[in-house]
Amino acid sequence: MIKRRKTRTVNVGSVKVGSSAPVVIQSMTKVPTVDIARCVRQINQLVQAGCRLVRIAVPTRADTAAFAKIVQKVSVPLIADVHFSPSRAIEAIEAGAAKVRLNPGNIKERKSIYRIIDAAKMHNTAIRIGINEASIRDLPGYGTLRRDEKKQDVPPAKRTALMLNEMKKYVRLFENRNFTQLVLSAKSSDPFRTIEINRKIADAFDYPIHLGLTHAGLPDDAQIPSAVTLGTLLAEGIGDTIRVSAACNPVVETEIAKQILVSLGLYPKSKFEFIVCPTCARAEMDVVKLARLIKKAIATQKFEIRNSKFEISAKGGLRIAVMGCIVNGPGEAADADLAVCAAKNKAYIYRNGQRISIVPESKIVPALLDELQKL
Amino acid sequence: MIKRRKTRTVNVGSVKVGSSAPVVIQSMTKVPTVDIARCVRQINQLVQAGCRLVRIAVPTRADTAAFAKIVQKVSVPLIADVHFSPSRAIEAIEAGAAKVRLNPGNIKERKSIYRIIDAAKMHNTAIRIGINEASIRDLPGYGTLRRDEKKQDVPPAKRTALMLNEMKKYVRLFENRNFTQLVLSAKSSDPFRTIEINRKIADAFDYPIHLGLTHAGLPDDAQIPSAVTLGTLLAEGIGDTIRVSAACNPVVETEIAKQILVSLGLYPKSKFEFIVCPTCARAEMDVVKLARLIKKAIATQKFEIRNSKFEISAKGGLRIAVMGCIVNGPGEAADADLAVCAAKNKAYIYRNGQRISIVPESKIVPALLDELQKL
Repeated sequence: MIKRRKTRTVNVGSVKVGSSAPVVIQSMTKVPTVDIARCVRQINQLVQAGCRLVRIAVPTRADTAAFAKIVQKVSVPLIADVHFSPSRAIEAIEAGAAKVRLNPGNIKERKSIYRIIDAAKMHNTAIRIGINEASIRDLPGYGTLRRDEKKQDVPPAKRTALMLNEMKKYVRLFENRNFTQLVLSAKSSDPFRTIEINRKIADAFDYPIHLGLTHAGLPDDAQIPSAVTLGTLLAEGIGDTIRVSAACNPVVETEIAKQILVSLGLYPKSKFEFIVCPTCARAEMDVVKLARLIKKAIATQKFEIRNSKFEISAKGGLRIAVMGCIVNGPGEAADADLAVCAAKNKAYIYRNGQRISIVPESKIVPALLDELQKL
Repeated sequence: MIKRRKTRTVNVGSVKVGSSAPVVIQSMTKVPTVDIARCVRQINQLVQAGCRLVRIAVPTRADTAAFAKIVQKVSVPLIADVHFSPSRAIEAIEAGAAKVRLNPGNIKERKSIYRIIDAAKMHNTAIRIGINEASIRDLPGYGTLRRDEKKQDVPPAKRTALMLNEMKKYVRLFENRNFTQLVLSAKSSDPFRTIEINRKIADAFDYPIHLGLTHAGLPDDAQIPSAVTLGTLLAEGIGDTIRVSAACNPVVETEIAKQILVSLGLYPKSKFEFIVCPTCARAEMDVVKLARLIKKAIATQKFEIRNSKFEISAKGGLRIAVMGCIVNGPGEAADADLAVCAAKNKAYIYRNGQRISIVPESKIVPALLDELQKL
């Protein structure tokens, strides 16, 4: 349904990034890179959770040495996250990084950047130019803050302009060296600024875009701003790979990223989808409790879903509606595979929009499980 | 920063809804309306949480009678949620409803709708035309489904077209009667369809829009799709009042709604805003644990924030950054009131972007609380 913004395709190892391919979820390891066993374990957990790319920080020589070994032990393409050091970037490329994430702004010499580009070309390594609002403090020649300016006082429009100029300058650097295996990202910890800068980057370039809201906080603080930011851009067709960043286990980041994509039809739905009315004074039964019971009962049962219609697919899993009254009950039931429409002490069970039975309150969950087994 | 779509202003009691006023959060009571005391208590909790309008279902005559008493006991404008019965709508209007939410599609006779309109005019009551994808099953003359069509097979584009036609028909009905105190809403349980239909309604009309994603499920399932849907529309300037619908206490709905608005700068930030880096292999300290400790310590302390700069305001509360390394640490610190940039066994404390001290790991929280007290 969403019309993706048309981009070039960039190969990150075996994974294609760009509008010709599905949006790719990625995350980042958060254990010491030198602890190879833990790192590999976390990578495998991330792949299991839905990541198709995994990024690893390699701040020291020991880290790039470990990175070289980790590449051999996992099947997912790895991205090396490099700051400050051209040597780390080149070591990671030679070690088999499928992509390197660079902020050219923190690599001092242009010559060093060219060395990285040449190494990446030789090894078919993609590069993400990743800029970050937090790092645009000093940008010689591109609207640098005056010494007497406080960053907090810089108006949002100027910040966005600074980031866009910075990106244009970096992209030129790579294109002048005939390097186009680029993915672009510009992050801020402010949602609307992240939306605005990405809209501008989407207008200015045809490279794939990596989306993220940076430094979003602990998961409870991070998930809604991340969903707002990434959701808005994705709904406008912008974004080819995403990473949710939250201060927590990266598997949780991946789950949030998946939920964002699923909600926009950009990722296969899970096996069961629950439509639940929010309840109001019309409800004559505790719908919240009923929905929780049904969800739990289904989660703890093992269903062999034989009918291919109900396989996990982009079109959707099995849709179960739990509704509290007749206002929208029959309508949602018509759109669901199974539905419960609660009334006083009893409920109507629907299959494919047809009412098939009336059961007392205590029998709702068993009746539904029964119908599920039949499907 | 967000440029709101220009709309008329509709007065809902003392609350203005439309682009000339801030986006209004609303929610709905979920206790029996006839239980007046519980209902009033829940309304007050919702107001406390941030609702500036509260909606109440009035399915029976006893409910509208209770509604009349509830109106007298609360200061917030109330909205009556009416389905099927023109009498309930008129009773609610006469009882002092500031707005009535109607789906004209489930009121059988046009004559009845005119009676409601006339009553609303006489009492200065606003009306929300609230349509719902679940209720568009039969719509004579507007692309009704054929008997042999299954709703699940109706393609999304047709669903959106059906809803838009339905809305156009209803708006004409009201305009023909010279009634323009209208708020419009079109909800679906599908995020992208909700985004699309609201974009179309925003193009077609200049009435304020009420946004919601309907039947979104239990809170864990509801919050990300709601943030994606409402966030996308709000970021595009669409939406004048919002309700997050989740199967839970409506105070939780209100908290989610607030988080969505705050993230886009459409609602005052809370007293403390936490920027936390997601951590990676570069971190030499447990940043997640540190961030949790800091958040908890601050939450349990009572701060008298005297400096007006730090009052709760749309511009922002007190911004505290907890960062794991020097890549973005100093940059985020420059944008924060207070910041901690962790290193190995120690941390750098920043105030307004200036590094003011280096403390051992065990002293980070006390040092930060100390700085907070000074502000």
